[in-house]
Amino acid sequence: MNQASHHVVVVGAGFGGLEFTRALAGAPIRITMIDKRNHHLFQPLLYQVATTALATSEIAWPIRHLLRKRKDVTTLLANVVGVDRAGKNVLLDDGGAVAYDTLLLATGARHAYFGHDEWEPFAPGLKTLEDATTVRRRILLAFEQAERETDPAKRQALLTIAIVGGGPTGVELAGTIVELAHDTLRGEFRNIDTRQTRVVLIEAGDRILANFAPKLSTYAVKALERLGVTIELGRAVTRCDADGVVFGDKHLAAGTILWAAGVAASPAAEWLGAAADRAGRVLVEPDLSVPGSPEIFVVGDAAHVLRPDGRPVPGVAPAAKQQGRQVAATLKARLAGDTSPRPFRYRHDGDLATIGKRAAVIDFGWIKLTGRAAWWLWGIAHIYFLIGFRNRLAVSLSWLWIYATGQRSARLITQGDDDKG
Amino acid sequence: MNQASHHVVVVGAGFGGLEFTRALAGAPIRITMIDKRNHHLFQPLLYQVATTALATSEIAWPIRHLLRKRKDVTTLLANVVGVDRAGKNVLLDDGGAVAYDTLLLATGARHAYFGHDEWEPFAPGLKTLEDATTVRRRILLAFEQAERETDPAKRQALLTIAIVGGGPTGVELAGTIVELAHDTLRGEFRNIDTRQTRVVLIEAGDRILANFAPKLSTYAVKALERLGVTIELGRAVTRCDADGVVFGDKHLAAGTILWAAGVAASPAAEWLGAAADRAGRVLVEPDLSVPGSPEIFVVGDAAHVLRPDGRPVPGVAPAAKQQGRQVAATLKARLAGDTSPRPFRYRHDGDLATIGKRAAVIDFGWIKLTGRAAWWLWGIAHIYFLIGFRNRLAVSLSWLWIYATGQRSARLITQGDDDKG
Repeated sequence: MNQASHHVVVVGAGFGGLEFTRALAGAPIRITMIDKRNHHLFQPLLYQVATTALATSEIAWPIRHLLRKRKDVTTLLANVVGVDRAGKNVLLDDGGAVAYDTLLLATGARHAYFGHDEWEPFAPGLKTLEDATTVRRRILLAFEQAERETDPAKRQALLTIAIVGGGPTGVELAGTIVELAHDTLRGEFRNIDTRQTRVVLIEAGDRILANFAPKLSTYAVKALERLGVTIELGRAVTRCDADGVVFGDKHLAAGTILWAAGVAASPAAEWLGAAADRAGRVLVEPDLSVPGSPEIFVVGDAAHVLRPDGRPVPGVAPAAKQQGRQVAATLKARLAGDTSPRPFRYRHDGDLATIGKRAAVIDFGWIKLTGRAAWWLWGIAHIYFLIGFRNRLAVSLSWLWIYATGQRSARLITQGDDDKG
Repeated sequence: MNQASHHVVVVGAGFGGLEFTRALAGAPIRITMIDKRNHHLFQPLLYQVATTALATSEIAWPIRHLLRKRKDVTTLLANVVGVDRAGKNVLLDDGGAVAYDTLLLATGARHAYFGHDEWEPFAPGLKTLEDATTVRRRILLAFEQAERETDPAKRQALLTIAIVGGGPTGVELAGTIVELAHDTLRGEFRNIDTRQTRVVLIEAGDRILANFAPKLSTYAVKALERLGVTIELGRAVTRCDADGVVFGDKHLAAGTILWAAGVAASPAAEWLGAAADRAGRVLVEPDLSVPGSPEIFVVGDAAHVLRPDGRPVPGVAPAAKQQGRQVAATLKARLAGDTSPRPFRYRHDGDLATIGKRAAVIDFGWIKLTGRAAWWLWGIAHIYFLIGFRNRLAVSLSWLWIYATGQRSARLITQGDDDKG
């Protein structure tokens, strides 16, 4: 193998793909980075765009700008539609093909509706910048419509926001939305009192934040209820429509439903014709390669990887980054002639979730934090992981402004809304 | 007339409508502010969103937040579809109606294509936030497509951006886009050299910035040409399509066409059944009221108003603000029993336009400025006119960042693009 001409194709510039590319700096290879978006998205803060705290550009960066100094990397904005494993080609939607020697698929996940895709128009999820501006528009429009509504029952339905899924995203949305309604918007309407907004968090399991220690779940329930969030446990959602949401024997009239419940992997498994789990994640070898194609790797939310104790590796940024680094190390070893298998071992750093702007829960295993101290640690950690001084400064400024004044800077209703009247 | 129950309806929260509402603080009236958007937009900086320098939320503010302390004002997000002059009702698209005693129509303008609406999909204009993100997407996508294009002629067409209209908006777009291509994006592509981007400014008249003193037009031409902009004078555009633009006997192959040429007023004249000029602006009385309906006023870009010398009042923010204040004074006088006519007199403060990030032209009549000093004065003036400390700080930060590093913070390709393949 002529190493200097070894061509690596990366599909997806999320946390996994980007970390892989970074770890290969200086390696004797050429890299082509393909993404259907022009930007890397800092997904952990996406809910803050959806709830008007941050601007879209504060959590997204042009991929080619991030990789501008890497002359060995060519960035392409393109839609992948398949992989020709035999011919070692990535197939594009314009009929083009990109040949690879090594391929990394880091294509992430979308939200999924457990076989009920008909719910999507009524219950948008949160994975892309457009998702975030859609959710933002839905929430803000509900208040605008309530201000014009004269029927008290319809008005209360418009002021009811149901969030499906009690994981970190659902908890963070619930805390932020109730603060938006009760604090930020208070006093700006004449016909409604935004403090009468109901935020209902619906979780099918028996506790929220199921990945955290039970006492942190208990704390989170108390903190959310103190903010004014209603929590409904133990009943799965069986219907979402324009009138609201049904869970168990209960119908909740809600003008806005947000989906934070399920994810499904991108079509990487279909492209490969490879075996996948129920959520569509590729069943990879211990070294994250695809069975039968040692030159293809899958990382992040697109891959099904187990921890030593048999639980799945969670779909979080640190897991994707660790996998990206692991595959980069494997590839560098192979280029150096060492083809011994290098199984991936996930190291879990901890779980974090904010509850509004004054509390958070942090579970590092060896230490558990709640309240204001946890919130500050959460904030500092996320500022740290943002890319670039400019964005760190901008996000810090936005947060301090909200903290001090309660005012949010990105309360914009933009774009049309084709999917729901 | 029972003054305390006097109800004023304002349609449009642009510069005119907002200034009118502000000037009526403390007056013995109730006000309903109706806008089809939830935000007031600082249009003079819209081109900076279109060219990735500013985020959308930095130049737009929720209307009801701006008016939150005015307990006499109710803000409604609603689409107006007509005015019932006899019944004194504003008609909404949901079948509702809002009764008024006094009505102010401050509905602004859209861009217009001189009877060639079929050009719009190929040559987007710049009036709304969505227009700005559309233009931003078109410009950034052209570079992305060029990076993938292998045919040299097609590649050069993709790297050609035509701007139709040599007024301030066209000049500001041209200067910023050429800097974006030559400075900001430089070195981030592997198959193209963004310095080969051609920006062509097409003006049908015999000089750009026709409202400015001739020597400032001459300066602007030199400053633009020094940046690398090609200026084409004296030939009107006769065709825009997917291949490019035709003006006079010339066909320019351009992947991106931006429209900065014509504006047409909003449908206020149609709603009223009132006489209008060719651009759709209502022909108002000297006091800005509608002939035959002294309780209805039209201000800003929706009104046709002449200066004492017979030239039309320009479609700029200061003109709309002056008119808003004037109508507020007229209304207050009427409520006090003084119905004497109060003709509007426009005071022209001057014309400003930036040329890239280091030059500007300013024509105050009594003083004319060019170059770096003009740029700083322009910047300080625009920061001053922004609303709120938070936005002044954010925009200052964005500008200083661009000034110091050349890097722009909002290089996002978002939303679909339904109108052009």
